[in-house]
Amino acid sequence: MHTIEIEALTAEEFAPFGQILSTENATHYPINAGMTERYHDLATVELEGPAARPLISIFRGQPYELPLTLSLMERHPLGSQAFFPLSSRPFLVIVAEDNEGKPAEPRAFLPKPGEGVNIAINTWHGVLTPLEAESDFLVVDRGGEGTNLEEHLFEQGYMIVMRDRSAS
Amino acid sequence: MHTIEIEALTAEEFAPFGQILSTENATHYPINAGMTERYHDLATVELEGPAARPLISIFRGQPYELPLTLSLMERHPLGSQAFFPLSSRPFLVIVAEDNEGKPAEPRAFLPKPGEGVNIAINTWHGVLTPLEAESDFLVVDRGGEGTNLEEHLFEQGYMIVMRDRSAS
Repeated sequence: MHTIEIEALTAEEFAPFGQILSTENATHYPINAGMTERYHDLATVELEGPAARPLISIFRGQPYELPLTLSLMERHPLGSQAFFPLSSRPFLVIVAEDNEGKPAEPRAFLPKPGEGVNIAINTWHGVLTPLEAESDFLVVDRGGEGTNLEEHLFEQGYMIVMRDRSAS
Repeated sequence: MHTIEIEALTAEEFAPFGQILSTENATHYPINAGMTERYHDLATVELEGPAARPLISIFRGQPYELPLTLSLMERHPLGSQAFFPLSSRPFLVIVAEDNEGKPAEPRAFLPKPGEGVNIAINTWHGVLTPLEAESDFLVVDRGGEGTNLEEHLFEQGYMIVMRDRSAS
């Protein structure tokens, strides 16, 4: 089984897949007579197809243990999907570029505490993957009519592992 | 100065002003082969006017001390505004019904930890009001063209106080 090493999440590396939701490097300005700083418009929310509307939901995810076997990826052809952690516990963001209608080799990113992600429309990604303990996420995705889910099952899965720091 | 006592946030009392964002009493169902529970579609996201689109932002709010003087309220005629706390610290949700284009007597609600709110379109509300310490909130509101802010300055402010528990 092919092995994928987890990478730190960076804006540059994640750019093909969506946006990082973070105060870091965001456009920001004071509002409310200076009492609030607004880190503005962090995500490209994409809503396509009939009766499209944004949904705000909470996802409560059970934890995965590492190394984990990735056998399924999915994508949403009609909308983006933003995940923001409601705890400081770690989670993985597993994504892949498209290769003729199937996921190319996946990449696994580890956000820093306080970072969320917005996964772009029609981008292959793994399911919600908290580590360590049950974790809640605020999710902004797309409601409406039409089929907004495509799944791909790998014939042979991938093993997702922590990067071996001793080897670098 | 008129005094307003802080109330517990309940769905029934908050219904005229928007929705509570919480797993409690939400429609939910399992996804991701049972590893994730989706608490689904918690808010009525309202987006009106030209070039309207949803924005995802982070608000970093400085804390207020109680009792606080409320002298300003605002409303957004073109969109709803959802606030979800990224910490378990308390914050106030101050809202008012409309009375001929001005806020009626305000009400101040205290959410439980883990609860956010979605303030409905064109609903009078106070500015973001964290208590105790600087606090971050994920915010989903409306971008686009047009004037989406109306402010009202009270001639005489209101004093917002904790309910006197000894008196009940």
